[in-house]
Amino acid sequence: MSFSVDDKTRSSSNFFGVRRDPDNCLLIIYGGSGDLAKRKLFPSLSNLQLKKQMPKRYKIIAVGRKDVQADELLSMGKYSDGFRKNFLYVQTDYDPAGVAKLKAICEQVCAEEGIEPNYLHYMAIPPKGYSDLARAISQGGLIHPPKNRNWSRLVVEKPYGRDLASAIELDESLLAGFAEKQIYRIDHYLGKETVQNLLVFRFANSVFEPIWNHHYIEHVQISGSEMLGVEERADYFDKSGSLRDMVQNHLMQILCMVTMEPPVNLSAESIRDEKVKVLRAMRPLDLAAQPPVAVRGQYGPGIVKGVAVPGYREEKGTAPETSTDTFVALRLHIDNLRWAGVPFYLRSGKRMGRKGTEVVVTFKKLPHVLFNARDHEAEPNRIVFKIQPQEAILLELTSKNPGQSFELTDTSMNFCYSDLFDTTADGYERLLLDSVLGDPTLFVRSDETELSWAFLDPLLKHWAVTPAGKAFPNYAAGEDHPAVADEVLLPGAQWLEFSKWDNVCP
Amino acid sequence: MSFSVDDKTRSSSNFFGVRRDPDNCLLIIYGGSGDLAKRKLFPSLSNLQLKKQMPKRYKIIAVGRKDVQADELLSMGKYSDGFRKNFLYVQTDYDPAGVAKLKAICEQVCAEEGIEPNYLHYMAIPPKGYSDLARAISQGGLIHPPKNRNWSRLVVEKPYGRDLASAIELDESLLAGFAEKQIYRIDHYLGKETVQNLLVFRFANSVFEPIWNHHYIEHVQISGSEMLGVEERADYFDKSGSLRDMVQNHLMQILCMVTMEPPVNLSAESIRDEKVKVLRAMRPLDLAAQPPVAVRGQYGPGIVKGVAVPGYREEKGTAPETSTDTFVALRLHIDNLRWAGVPFYLRSGKRMGRKGTEVVVTFKKLPHVLFNARDHEAEPNRIVFKIQPQEAILLELTSKNPGQSFELTDTSMNFCYSDLFDTTADGYERLLLDSVLGDPTLFVRSDETELSWAFLDPLLKHWAVTPAGKAFPNYAAGEDHPAVADEVLLPGAQWLEFSKWDNVCP
Repeated sequence: MSFSVDDKTRSSSNFFGVRRDPDNCLLIIYGGSGDLAKRKLFPSLSNLQLKKQMPKRYKIIAVGRKDVQADELLSMGKYSDGFRKNFLYVQTDYDPAGVAKLKAICEQVCAEEGIEPNYLHYMAIPPKGYSDLARAISQGGLIHPPKNRNWSRLVVEKPYGRDLASAIELDESLLAGFAEKQIYRIDHYLGKETVQNLLVFRFANSVFEPIWNHHYIEHVQISGSEMLGVEERADYFDKSGSLRDMVQNHLMQILCMVTMEPPVNLSAESIRDEKVKVLRAMRPLDLAAQPPVAVRGQYGPGIVKGVAVPGYREEKGTAPETSTDTFVALRLHIDNLRWAGVPFYLRSGKRMGRKGTEVVVTFKKLPHVLFNARDHEAEPNRIVFKIQPQEAILLELTSKNPGQSFELTDTSMNFCYSDLFDTTADGYERLLLDSVLGDPTLFVRSDETELSWAFLDPLLKHWAVTPAGKAFPNYAAGEDHPAVADEVLLPGAQWLEFSKWDNVCP
Repeated sequence: MSFSVDDKTRSSSNFFGVRRDPDNCLLIIYGGSGDLAKRKLFPSLSNLQLKKQMPKRYKIIAVGRKDVQADELLSMGKYSDGFRKNFLYVQTDYDPAGVAKLKAICEQVCAEEGIEPNYLHYMAIPPKGYSDLARAISQGGLIHPPKNRNWSRLVVEKPYGRDLASAIELDESLLAGFAEKQIYRIDHYLGKETVQNLLVFRFANSVFEPIWNHHYIEHVQISGSEMLGVEERADYFDKSGSLRDMVQNHLMQILCMVTMEPPVNLSAESIRDEKVKVLRAMRPLDLAAQPPVAVRGQYGPGIVKGVAVPGYREEKGTAPETSTDTFVALRLHIDNLRWAGVPFYLRSGKRMGRKGTEVVVTFKKLPHVLFNARDHEAEPNRIVFKIQPQEAILLELTSKNPGQSFELTDTSMNFCYSDLFDTTADGYERLLLDSVLGDPTLFVRSDETELSWAFLDPLLKHWAVTPAGKAFPNYAAGEDHPAVADEVLLPGAQWLEFSKWDNVCP
């Protein structure tokens, strides 16, 4: 039986442990000869097939302008014959004639293979092409209205706009052809187990639920560090910067998962409603505040993994004297009852000394009445969510040093996903399957992305008209802690050394 | 400089990380040719010497009635020449003449070795001799009044009485010669790191302090299981039983550490004051209650570690048709604001299927609103304090099963003392050093022991006049869960399978 899975019943029932077979469908991957498709999407789909999680009957239709053979697209990985059999490549432009050709092929494949015409459109193309492609798909008749017996979905990769205006514009152009519930905006950080586990951790554990608020939490740090520079993407990145590339989407989404109120239920809409409430409660950035709420940085030449690397302005493809931020640090506040007075520190940078994305929740210390040891200032309790590259949760506690007297020592409990589970699944695997199943929970709704852009827009505008000039570069490639980040700290606060949690998992 | 260490200043300052050199002294070990001395005390003292924690100048004077040589007493272990040099054996009776002889030797040793006459008297003798020996020491002039320039202390091993009346009688006879602050009642469970860590865990961690009460804790189980039977001790044990041998002292002490209010400070008196408050708040045992508040058991023949073993009544040295309890289970309540409504289940037994002493704190579940998975009833959060043979703390959480949907799974974080610290120190080592240093924190004050006896006295009296008859044996040697234990459970409760935590540490 085939039925529409865009109804709420199905996607929410999924959360209660009910697995249903995904509908037979076509996965139409635009940008099918591109990097993302080859490196991420095809391997993830192949893994899903190996795990027998793909629909009974399906075809992957890679679509691209390049003149290549299907086999060449699969030359980078190991693919089974079963997978190759379900894979074809269609060379075409995205103009009306091209879409008509694609439509004919899709209908023919469906007819020949006995696949109901459910279409998953995956836009793995450069973002500037999103609007035109969505319009072409829609006008070319490759979509079904949401009440139709069959379904069409549109998966959109980041970046989803580059500021509030362009995000709204993009939304409008997509919504001209698709209903909001047909649009799946990917944030692959939401596919990470630790990020999803934030909700379980918070709302299924009676030891943490009562202390997850400003009464007990002192501050939160969310950090995303890359060792890579801009590689081949300077052309894109130089028009973007870290605030757009990492903060507006990934870190803000993580922030929402850390701070949202318990949802009414686990349906996609309920969860996204709560994330939206967090975004609405964000205290607007006061660009005149002291200490400043945001600082930016750009790397100069330095040493990463023992190799000398050029500064950002020396990278091929960056504008002369470019002011693009390769590092940002922010101090945010959420003005609601739960989080009043708790600062949230976010930072993200390229060419750091280490790679890792983490959330660290620091709890208030107990009053120093009993254990005010002179020779050991105990660290506060912390919970560390390691999101990548390792996935793990750590609990940092104060314990008693064995032996005479009540000397304190810092100890840590942790569990590493790799110890307990097969964690080879990439975030993409999860998200691809969700989009096939029609579960939009881990995708970003338009109001989320627009609110996030609206929140950051004043800062983006401010930076856009304030060239960094000789203030950049202000950190050396390979640094863990660009000094400029300290400027956003409230008195008494400090950035934590995230590297100390690098080796807790095997 | 030598000074009295029985003043409160010193023992409390010890908690703030100040280590002082222990005073030079004599360690006079009565029962010096006995089993406890040879198996526990001498090795512990030797370890302390190796760790350079013993006083600069000291002598161990093993005292006993047997005609043996010092070297024979040390033949069971490896002892350094330095240790042997500080060790002598004095053969004597504990009558006035014998004590006079001992006194002369002590004074001579002190004079020859330049040791100030500080005397630690350690009664490693059968309990029936405590009163007489204490009197002999006192009347023989081997003690110093508490205000004296030098000190004397009396270390008393368990059992400290066999019921309330005998405990009071023993106290009175000891207090005839010693001041309360000179008496160190050993409970070697208090020397365990995990037991001491209970206080740090509870009062130094802001994530646990707020949830350590009846609002969040559902119930607590404290369990002490032995695989051994009565071995060579049937003669003693048959007059004692598990309630006296394990519950009155060890498990009740652990219960106090789990439940006490935060002490004013970490001085010995403040901590013991709080333990006494718990004992005073114990709801008196209602022997007519249904379900019963206490049950007893006795093992029959069975199999332990693959070996067939006799039942308790078949053990050599037990009385015919003996009703002695080799297993007890209790349901206790602490009637104060913190613990109202929280049942505490205690059990202890010999000839169980496993060996281990643990505290398991089970938290109330969150309301089942979000994650009411049909196929997985999540376990509640738990904290497990493993006290012996492993020392560890575990936190059992609910986590997300990787992959599609919000399926829940039970995960565990833990830290094992053996991973982090050298845990070769026996409880005795700690307690011996404390008694040399004059720190009474981990020793039991007379009001504690009397209150514990007073609490259990009605039950002891009731069992004493109620022969078990054919009801015993009621479990087979080698059983983990004697069924009789279930009788004390309130509706909906169950004993946990403690064996599942047996292998969490290497």
